[in-house]
Amino acid sequence: MPTVRLWTDADAAANPQVKAVFDDIRAVRQSDFINNFWRGLANQPVLLERTWAGLKEVMVAPGVLDPLTKELIYIAVSIANGCSYCIHSHTAAARAKGLSEAQHAEFLAVVGMAGQTTAIATALQIPVDREFVVTD
Amino acid sequence: MPTVRLWTDADAAANPQVKAVFDDIRAVRQSDFINNFWRGLANQPVLLERTWAGLKEVMVAPGVLDPLTKELIYIAVSIANGCSYCIHSHTAAARAKGLSEAQHAEFLAVVGMAGQTTAIATALQIPVDREFVVTD
Amino acid sequence: MPTVRLWTDADAAANPQVKAVFDDIRAVRQSDFINNFWRGLANQPVLLERTWAGLKEVMVAPGVLDPLTKELIYIAVSIANGCSYCIHSHTAAARAKGLSEAQHAEFLAVVGMAGQTTAIATALQIPVDREFVVTD
Amino acid sequence: MPTVRLWTDADAAANPQVKAVFDDIRAVRQSDFINNFWRGLANQPVLLERTWAGLKEVMVAPGVLDPLTKELIYIAVSIANGCSYCIHSHTAAARAKGLSEAQHAEFLAVVGMAGQTTAIATALQIPVDREFVVTD
Amino acid sequence: MPTVRLWTDADAAANPQVKAVFDDIRAVRQSDFINNFWRGLANQPVLLERTWAGLKEVMVAPGVLDPLTKELIYIAVSIANGCSYCIHSHTAAARAKGLSEAQHAEFLAVVGMAGQTTAIATALQIPVDREFVVTD
Amino acid sequence: MPTVRLWTDADAAANPQVKAVFDDIRAVRQSDFINNFWRGLANQPVLLERTWAGLKEVMVAPGVLDPLTKELIYIAVSIANGCSYCIHSHTAAARAKGLSEAQHAEFLAVVGMAGQTTAIATALQIPVDREFVVTD
Repeated sequence: MPTVRLWTDADAAANPQVKAVFDDIRAVRQSDFINNFWRGLANQPVLLERTWAGLKEVMVAPGVLDPLTKELIYIAVSIANGCSYCIHSHTAAARAKGLSEAQHAEFLAVVGMAGQTTAIATALQIPVDREFVVTD
Repeated sequence: MPTVRLWTDADAAANPQVKAVFDDIRAVRQSDFINNFWRGLANQPVLLERTWAGLKEVMVAPGVLDPLTKELIYIAVSIANGCSYCIHSHTAAARAKGLSEAQHAEFLAVVGMAGQTTAIATALQIPVDREFVVTD
Repeated sequence: MPTVRLWTDADAAANPQVKAVFDDIRAVRQSDFINNFWRGLANQPVLLERTWAGLKEVMVAPGVLDPLTKELIYIAVSIANGCSYCIHSHTAAARAKGLSEAQHAEFLAVVGMAGQTTAIATALQIPVDREFVVTD
Repeated sequence: MPTVRLWTDADAAANPQVKAVFDDIRAVRQSDFINNFWRGLANQPVLLERTWAGLKEVMVAPGVLDPLTKELIYIAVSIANGCSYCIHSHTAAARAKGLSEAQHAEFLAVVGMAGQTTAIATALQIPVDREFVVTD
Repeated sequence: MPTVRLWTDADAAANPQVKAVFDDIRAVRQSDFINNFWRGLANQPVLLERTWAGLKEVMVAPGVLDPLTKELIYIAVSIANGCSYCIHSHTAAARAKGLSEAQHAEFLAVVGMAGQTTAIATALQIPVDREFVVTD
Repeated sequence: MPTVRLWTDADAAANPQVKAVFDDIRAVRQSDFINNFWRGLANQPVLLERTWAGLKEVMVAPGVLDPLTKELIYIAVSIANGCSYCIHSHTAAARAKGLSEAQHAEFLAVVGMAGQTTAIATALQIPVDREFVVTD
């Protein structure tokens, strides 16, 4: 249950700024589906607009990392930050971009391994090796 | 400064279990360099052995995700968990596996975007869309 | 669903220590409503008493930060710690103290921005500038 | 020690995109000082530009929350995310915006209290009270 | 609602690797009950097998910390990582191992205190005392 | 490097409230050593007094959990919250209370295991089993 009201399409139709973002989401994704994140963010039209612009630039525009890799990084952050909604939405997005069961299994193994070794390295307060230091 | 002593090669030579792991790390990585994480973990030989076995299985053995993608997922978890050592060691590992400056830039953009939207989605307590639910 | 039983008013009536805290919460807040946090904490009367005493001193007693600012700081910590209950209760408290929609929007923008830049600064392991160091 | 090279002014002078951002930071802040965060981010000119644009919009442009309140929210997120650099830079910024010792003390008390109750509420998995739910 | 399908006993019966792990869980715990964590992990048989082997070694095999202490440490990590499922399952496990209400209360007090002081120590960026440094 | 000044004994001598706390710490611990946490917190005498009172009640007064178990829980939270200072100070405290190398090894194994399974359970969003639910 959200801390804000989720905007319906009728609500959005009455606010040109929100409507423009919803229209663009639909055009970019070639789907009529607007997920709840945007419907909640619609309460803050300026933030909605800026967040969607950022996401489009980072996650939709072609880049040098492939789209599935970017989704896996996104899920990893979502897990570590304990964001249930984000885990669901980006796992669904990864599947839509072709994530196989075998890849999901390997992803979970990496995330689990990283959860284990980050805890241990932090517990031991391991000093950074000179070999890892970036120099000019 | 670590909470435990870091083992030198001389220390390791005196403990067969630790020596076997150090030898295997060197053989697998084809390098004489043993980074501080393993030198600290050597105080707990059983945990050292199990952790290296896990890491080798997850990060070294061939799988269905490419090695660079796995390092990026690892760095993402390390950042979110605030593990300074892990960020350094896995950023170095990613570079050794070919991470370009352009890819690092895009990775940072994804991690930053995920940091932003996970905070907002959590703040709004957005309910999971029915469309994301896994069914049989 | 909680990991402990939530105390009803009838339960509290049977325990003088819990009853005293519940009575004080009602007196201080000038409301009959006791939210679930205190009903769960009632299983540990000593902790209940100490936690309420602390909260009253920090959040209720007049200070040098205004009450709404303190609630926003509280929500920010709740978001970063992923505490769903705390986000709901302190967002409701902030609204009761006058948080407007425009202020909520700006708060979310700050929290989102902070989520983004803390992730990036951590990823880059930026060294602290000499200019920020506190000296005598 | 950073995972990337920190750009000097000479480096920035050779890259028009980076130079434009550095110039704007100096103009907006009316100070010659460019802190290390931007010098590290300069390795990713597009991300540098977008991040500064966001920060300027959220933290510099006049809004409905006062500038000091926004800094305190920022520090709270930085603490919870364990970002040492961010804690230093935003504590310095808060002081520059007038944070008094008494206000800092009260801020710490709120952050400490929130650290305590978020842990306990999470441990008890307290269900959200019906009274906190947002309805239309 | 999970991001993966939860395996029934009938599903497990059709996969020898999964069936072997389920059988071993039942044998080790001397109970027919298989909790949902393992039913979800069954989608990744290799990870299921390795995770159960690790858990058995760390949490079931006799060691130098008593079983209840290990569960309390586990719950503490689960709380700090905001893992709702883990809090429930390990609190139940701790109770099965004899956790009393008084011990639970004291555990919560410690976790709350640690939540408070870690936030404050991080906010103040307290330097480590020379007295705490480990030397040979 | 701290964000506040660390108080010397001479500073403390000039402030009766701070001096009283420092004196009590020395009396309770039967040691002249005052660690930096308290020297930083001295800038906020009220918070110093309340925090020490809480810590004394929770960690020093006899209870139903043994002192070493409480330190291990404290370290677990410190690790998960990425508080470097807290990890050092409470690992030193645990050693002073008799933590053996073998116990430290087992503690690290539990913390690592918990880091792994909390990440995986969160990734899979495992629903809580009915068997774990607390009822009256």
